[in-house]
Amino acid sequence: MAAPRIAVIGVGLIGGSIALAARERVGADVVGYDSSAPALAAALERGALDRAAPTIAEAVSDRDVVFVAVPVGMISQAVGAALAAAPPECVVSDVGSTKRTIVADHDDPRFVGGHPLAGAETSGVEHARADLFEGATWYLTPAATTSGVPYERLYRLLRQLGARPTAIDADTHDTILATVSHLPHAFANVLVSQAAHALSAEDERLPATGPSFRDATRVAGASSAIWTDIYISNRVVLAAQVEEAIERLGRFRDALVAGDEDAVTAWNDAAAIDRRRLLEAQFAAGPLVELRASVPNRPGVIAQLALELGRSGVNITDMALYPAPDMSDGVVALWIAGEKEARRAHDLVRRLGFPVTVA
Amino acid sequence: MAAPRIAVIGVGLIGGSIALAARERVGADVVGYDSSAPALAAALERGALDRAAPTIAEAVSDRDVVFVAVPVGMISQAVGAALAAAPPECVVSDVGSTKRTIVADHDDPRFVGGHPLAGAETSGVEHARADLFEGATWYLTPAATTSGVPYERLYRLLRQLGARPTAIDADTHDTILATVSHLPHAFANVLVSQAAHALSAEDERLPATGPSFRDATRVAGASSAIWTDIYISNRVVLAAQVEEAIERLGRFRDALVAGDEDAVTAWNDAAAIDRRRLLEAQFAAGPLVELRASVPNRPGVIAQLALELGRSGVNITDMALYPAPDMSDGVVALWIAGEKEARRAHDLVRRLGFPVTVA
Repeated sequence: MAAPRIAVIGVGLIGGSIALAARERVGADVVGYDSSAPALAAALERGALDRAAPTIAEAVSDRDVVFVAVPVGMISQAVGAALAAAPPECVVSDVGSTKRTIVADHDDPRFVGGHPLAGAETSGVEHARADLFEGATWYLTPAATTSGVPYERLYRLLRQLGARPTAIDADTHDTILATVSHLPHAFANVLVSQAAHALSAEDERLPATGPSFRDATRVAGASSAIWTDIYISNRVVLAAQVEEAIERLGRFRDALVAGDEDAVTAWNDAAAIDRRRLLEAQFAAGPLVELRASVPNRPGVIAQLALELGRSGVNITDMALYPAPDMSDGVVALWIAGEKEARRAHDLVRRLGFPVTVA
Repeated sequence: MAAPRIAVIGVGLIGGSIALAARERVGADVVGYDSSAPALAAALERGALDRAAPTIAEAVSDRDVVFVAVPVGMISQAVGAALAAAPPECVVSDVGSTKRTIVADHDDPRFVGGHPLAGAETSGVEHARADLFEGATWYLTPAATTSGVPYERLYRLLRQLGARPTAIDADTHDTILATVSHLPHAFANVLVSQAAHALSAEDERLPATGPSFRDATRVAGASSAIWTDIYISNRVVLAAQVEEAIERLGRFRDALVAGDEDAVTAWNDAAAIDRRRLLEAQFAAGPLVELRASVPNRPGVIAQLALELGRSGVNITDMALYPAPDMSDGVVALWIAGEKEARRAHDLVRRLGFPVTVA
């Protein structure tokens, strides 16, 4: 497929990044559409589009591939509009984070549901990048009605964008996402609301409790403009996952009420094993090792640590600061992939004079 | 109180830090006891103790203040042993993270329950620091039986150690800690076990899902040696908190099953308001502003950012990396206290060439 003709419907972070990647890496001709004129202007300004179209129908009329990258609640309608106006040989896909409903709504052989696992942390075309999908899992949910030719064309294009397209059943996709994304968001919401309620009932301020509450609630109250759509579109699967979580919490409550230490320990040990298994499966570079160093929390210390590791070629997979209540000092956790790398990092940090242990 | 005589029962991170702070900041004479001979030797080596005692009774026999800093499940017994051997004018306190049971067990006028909010991220005397409690809330839970003189002596000593002693009812303490610490740990356990179960049922690996799952599960399966004690010792209050969480999740499930978008949005918006309120109450330095910058995830970039902010005197209250699936790039979130500071940080990051937005 040389110089494919592509339309992107919705030019935010994801749509804009698809457009940039298609232009820069594949030499595609990219037409964009967005219901927001400023967003469309920003995408043109950013160099993501060859030109803008005034309607979905005009954007897709002569295209080989169409990506629908609007908010989840609007995807199904936009996909319908795209399929109605796209040529017979065109493939139409979307990037929504739930798939069952959208796939059920469209039995057109030209449609393939999709979901790239990338870029959820920011929004807007100003954060778009041609390499956003490099190495990223890109779920595709072909249905029984999906034709092989458009699927294969889409697959090859995604490879060219740097992604790893992975076929998955739409139901399985929604179950996994409910478990690893939607449920954690719901838990975060419950934690902040329950804490706010408990503290106001006790007339107390939130104490500086360290990282567990903060980490667990970082995604609490994420934008309703995005998340109501996600929750509602995945409501059947998510409701079942919430129910399962309620049952798990109920068993923990029962062990507490019974004062059953062995049951509590077994439950907690199982979680430790599950956590390590999940982490190790995720990181192909080797088991993830967590180092904890005690550091003064002043400007420059993190830089010193990061510089020292960087100079020696040790890459930090993840990092978290746990400041003391007065912010004067704290602990920095460093996640390093691979035991050998972690040992080197450990020695380097120790040589800088900071107490460090493997967690 | 010049040169008080202090005993520390249990010389790990907390006990060791109390000992160091008391010696360095107050000029105290500090005797230590630990059931682990290597731990006791390490504390002597670290300079935390004037000398070691072979039993609790010998450690406390001529002391003014005794701190019991053993694991939660062993505190009550150790406090009993200390009270049995301590002089009539001595004050005995502990540092356990639940208080109701321990306080109920001891109606001695010399006993005051305590809980410093510091140092949960590492363990062992090698991480002990004389400034661990600087600015830290240190809960004290005096009971009706507690005498005023030992309470006041303990209070003054804690101020000298740099802490902010705060009197709180033992029940209220346990409710707050259940809400902001024990429940988040339980949620993390449920999430990892449910995800491991869902993924094995679907024969799928955990996808690189970004930060929400990882943040929410960072404390999953924390050491049972510590956490079984905590869960069990706070089981009455925690069971009630788990039950409340089950009810909140049940209402969310009901809104999902009904497909009630307005209810889901209202629930999510309430969480957003609760989260901001909690964060702002926690950080006295000004409202916490979250910046998100898109950066290549290579060695040196975080150093460059941290150095640039450090050079300009901007301190980073908290930081989190959200790497892309292939670790080649990602988003770094920076939490800065105060709007003016955050604006400066924003401009500095932008000047380095990284796209940055206020979250």
